[in-house]
Amino acid sequence: MIPVELIRKKRDGGELSPDELKPFVEAYVKGDIPDYQMAAWLMAVYFRGMTDTETTEFTNIMLHSGTVIDLASIPGVKVDKHSTGGVGDKVSIMLAPLVAACGVPVPMISGRGLGHTGGTLDKLESIPGFRTDLEIDTYKKVIEKIGVVMIGQTKDIAPADKKMYALRDVTATVECIPLIAGSIMSKKLAEGIDALVLDVKTGSGAFMREKERAVELAQTLINIGEAFGKRTIGFITDMNQPLGNAVGNWLEVDECIRCMKGEEVNDLMDVTYRLAGAMIYLGEKSGSIEEGETIARQAIASGAAYDKFMELVQIQGGDTAFIEDTAKYKNPDFSEDVTLDREGYIGAIDNQGIGFAGLVTGAGRKKVDDAIDYTAGIVIHKKTGDSVQPKEPVATVYSNSREGVTAAKQRIQQAYRVSDEPVKPPPLIYGMADKQGYRDY
Amino acid sequence: MIPVELIRKKRDGGELSPDELKPFVEAYVKGDIPDYQMAAWLMAVYFRGMTDTETTEFTNIMLHSGTVIDLASIPGVKVDKHSTGGVGDKVSIMLAPLVAACGVPVPMISGRGLGHTGGTLDKLESIPGFRTDLEIDTYKKVIEKIGVVMIGQTKDIAPADKKMYALRDVTATVECIPLIAGSIMSKKLAEGIDALVLDVKTGSGAFMREKERAVELAQTLINIGEAFGKRTIGFITDMNQPLGNAVGNWLEVDECIRCMKGEEVNDLMDVTYRLAGAMIYLGEKSGSIEEGETIARQAIASGAAYDKFMELVQIQGGDTAFIEDTAKYKNPDFSEDVTLDREGYIGAIDNQGIGFAGLVTGAGRKKVDDAIDYTAGIVIHKKTGDSVQPKEPVATVYSNSREGVTAAKQRIQQAYRVSDEPVKPPPLIYGMADKQGYRDY
Repeated sequence: MIPVELIRKKRDGGELSPDELKPFVEAYVKGDIPDYQMAAWLMAVYFRGMTDTETTEFTNIMLHSGTVIDLASIPGVKVDKHSTGGVGDKVSIMLAPLVAACGVPVPMISGRGLGHTGGTLDKLESIPGFRTDLEIDTYKKVIEKIGVVMIGQTKDIAPADKKMYALRDVTATVECIPLIAGSIMSKKLAEGIDALVLDVKTGSGAFMREKERAVELAQTLINIGEAFGKRTIGFITDMNQPLGNAVGNWLEVDECIRCMKGEEVNDLMDVTYRLAGAMIYLGEKSGSIEEGETIARQAIASGAAYDKFMELVQIQGGDTAFIEDTAKYKNPDFSEDVTLDREGYIGAIDNQGIGFAGLVTGAGRKKVDDAIDYTAGIVIHKKTGDSVQPKEPVATVYSNSREGVTAAKQRIQQAYRVSDEPVKPPPLIYGMADKQGYRDY
Repeated sequence: MIPVELIRKKRDGGELSPDELKPFVEAYVKGDIPDYQMAAWLMAVYFRGMTDTETTEFTNIMLHSGTVIDLASIPGVKVDKHSTGGVGDKVSIMLAPLVAACGVPVPMISGRGLGHTGGTLDKLESIPGFRTDLEIDTYKKVIEKIGVVMIGQTKDIAPADKKMYALRDVTATVECIPLIAGSIMSKKLAEGIDALVLDVKTGSGAFMREKERAVELAQTLINIGEAFGKRTIGFITDMNQPLGNAVGNWLEVDECIRCMKGEEVNDLMDVTYRLAGAMIYLGEKSGSIEEGETIARQAIASGAAYDKFMELVQIQGGDTAFIEDTAKYKNPDFSEDVTLDREGYIGAIDNQGIGFAGLVTGAGRKKVDDAIDYTAGIVIHKKTGDSVQPKEPVATVYSNSREGVTAAKQRIQQAYRVSDEPVKPPPLIYGMADKQGYRDY
């Protein structure tokens, strides 16, 4: 295996065989191939792509660079969900306990906020005491006991992906579908799942802005999942505006608690029910996605999902008193309404702008080791299609920093487009993909 | 200047401004930007190319990373030649003294063999005592005194190119026209030249196999030269078979000595006279390239070129006794004729194969620090279009290694294609390019 020849082969559009790819990536992970050769290869992959065979093998190598958790001893079809990330996407917080409450074990390993998007781990950690850094043994015990567990990446899971991702981040090779897919799936396949539901976001607040790219990513992810014998279903959902109303860690947990207690936040719950329906279906607790949705709605209405969430918070060290009475949570020092000085209809929202507005309130990190202000964030009052008056707040900003409030307000004002004519809101769920392909709804 | 943003900009097809390119390359040369970011950028350049402005600025940055020699105090228009390299391309050895003998100062900094191609420095160093590692001060004194000097790359000349080239070599980013052009021109412009003649090779033994690519490289090189105010002319010449008959260091020097003494090796001398004509024309010692050629022929016929060569060998420490009597040179231990066991016409020669055959005789390096067997190599007896009989030698192999002889014979036999029908030899000089563009002959 001569590294420069493999770089040249990919550069010239060739397909690397498993016998070429495996020693190449493994030698890189061991430090026997330098970063600069991997960087050149990654950029060649950016331009030339990978075949399905390459993508699967690449995933396989990263998966087996670390621990592959075995949950075979736990009864039931274990199902997880992965979202490609967005603004206000707090679905996992409800979805995991909800699906578990319906009898499907959910082993979930999540990530932190990235760029303008939030991360499930950060949101969970806004619950005082909640620990996401469980060891793999404890992870197994928790899911065995209560049917759901939510932790963060451990150093044992896909270390090759961690090393490659760090390099991609500084060499402009992140935005590449086979590399993204390999990164996601190597971590998901390590969790011990039997099936997977994907929520691939598209729109101004998503990493895949164009729907075609989102569909391509979904299909690549599904191909990998199915190649590993895991049933995989994907949905393409809208990220042209925040999902639900809250953006910010505790604000989002609070919104989830209210929803689990029965409050209807339509777009958020519609996505949650659809994903839950698919997970329940894949978990063999319903005959169809639709039937799964009905079961999920009942689990919210009955309080079973909320109870499972309380159980999860408790077992992972969280203080359930804050869940039972969210008013106990400290309020941020500053809050201000955002108005637009215009009458009309919300025409569009630059959702990445909203994401960055959330970041400057203190809800996200500018640098990897920045501390997070869990109380900071934004609550959205007006979404695309809503009518608005000049003095009517479109959003409220929360922060412990006065500068954060001012900066976020400006960004939000820049993110909103107002139209004189009525505007139709964007679709919420564009369509669904499985191994048979993608179908628009 | 954020490196990853510049990588992304190039990746997405953007043009880097001088204000972006300069700090990026300079920081890399200083070690403030790591190899992996440069490697990713180079691969992005491979796919996206560079604009003329970028290529010129890139050359400029590499040029000014080291010493730019000033020969303004030496009278006359200083002209050099650069060849993109090939098999049996020994032209420089005759051309530099020949053009100097015609009154045009020739400051020449050459390179070593690369891959299957030979290098002028290695050939010169096959002359016992000949030193190519002169300091820049000595370089200046030699050209001032005798009107010609031939040395190797010094560490002071374009160190940025040296660092970048080493990285390109191991990241499969060598074969990229703007990067090749920048590398060549940053070194040539550092020599102190006023004008430049280019010999861009095309065919099975050249780095640019396709003529279109050779033309593109010639035009890129000319654009750079002219942007720096240096008149630049380029010829596209054939490298589908060795130039002349000898391949190997001393064998080539020996062929040059014979040619300078009046022996006619048609293809070799036709190229030499054409390049000399252009250099004499650019050096303002003739009114046209054709007139320059006539002057050059006279300088060979009169012995002036040979005398200048002797002067050069002497001043650079070479033992002229070996030039005066080439029979004094040690013969290699082994030599064998190569036959093809077929009757017909030489249909084509895989000239890269001939180059590698030369390499396995010991005439070239497999690794950078391999020693060279100066006496080793090949003498070609049959070129494309020649008729051949089964027992008639097409080449003779020379080596101090018996295995080298055997391996080279096999490669030569594989490189020759024999045709039953008469075959027309390939053209020798395809055309000429200058700032007005390229014209086929």
